[in-house]
Amino acid sequence: MPLRSDWSSATCAIARSLQSVGDPWTLLILREAFVGTTRYEQFRDNLGIADNVLSRRLAAMVENDLLRKSPYRGEQRTHEEYLLTEAGADLYPVLSALGRWGAKHTPPPANGRRIRAIHLTCGRAARSVDYCTFCQVPLTSADVAWHRLWLDEEPTPLATASGE
Amino acid sequence: MPLRSDWSSATCAIARSLQSVGDPWTLLILREAFVGTTRYEQFRDNLGIADNVLSRRLAAMVENDLLRKSPYRGEQRTHEEYLLTEAGADLYPVLSALGRWGAKHTPPPANGRRIRAIHLTCGRAARSVDYCTFCQVPLTSADVAWHRLWLDEEPTPLATASGE
Repeated sequence: MPLRSDWSSATCAIARSLQSVGDPWTLLILREAFVGTTRYEQFRDNLGIADNVLSRRLAAMVENDLLRKSPYRGEQRTHEEYLLTEAGADLYPVLSALGRWGAKHTPPPANGRRIRAIHLTCGRAARSVDYCTFCQVPLTSADVAWHRLWLDEEPTPLATASGE
Repeated sequence: MPLRSDWSSATCAIARSLQSVGDPWTLLILREAFVGTTRYEQFRDNLGIADNVLSRRLAAMVENDLLRKSPYRGEQRTHEEYLLTEAGADLYPVLSALGRWGAKHTPPPANGRRIRAIHLTCGRAARSVDYCTFCQVPLTSADVAWHRLWLDEEPTPLATASGE
């Protein structure tokens, strides 16, 4: 018996999504991609994830068209980096919804640190998952910055889909 | 080594959320709860989920305060039903975001069936995860109906948090 069900042809769009993103590490890798992480070693170090788990997840995310691999020239040789596709960037509302729920319904971290999602156009904190209620426009990762209040003077604009 | 990491005290609110809801079955059980499923046998039959998996997930969801157990009087004896808590009902935007992404980025099902989220107040299809862009009000599960276009004449209002 497989460890997981196959929901790729489910009638329900929620179930079909979970086929690609129904895994916590996949969503945390996406979170890293949104704040600009692109290289294998950066994902590994930032997430504290085991090599075999990270390799498998990144391969599946490329296979599922959430990330794409792109070569870059390192000091010694050419490496690969992982960039958000359009489908990957469109998962911003899923992360936004999870973050908003966690901020409301889980105990705050002992260090008191918190993040605000800022609409770049107006500079206001987002009050909805994917819509600026002030400007009355949709919010995508191209329009949003995450302000890590304990770390950054300025909010960090999120990464968005990279062209080929 | 545990099968999963413990993110319950992570700085990141997304990671803390994934501690409770970073599992596909948990999110599909929630989907069922939103359309009115409350009994063990209904969850099992509607989801095609194995008994041991369902029992473990329901227990964890009660433990994590997403569902609460409530007795009801059956024909022969008293049974338990599972009702959404406030924290459970507040996960509506997570399901909404997953559904919207799946509708856009996964192949539609062979049967062509699709669901629309309708704002009960205005009767219009939602264009944002958690905000009615027409009425300019937030959308919660108390304000939304899912219209299963192939099945129902009328949209089904979603369940919301049950009082004690």
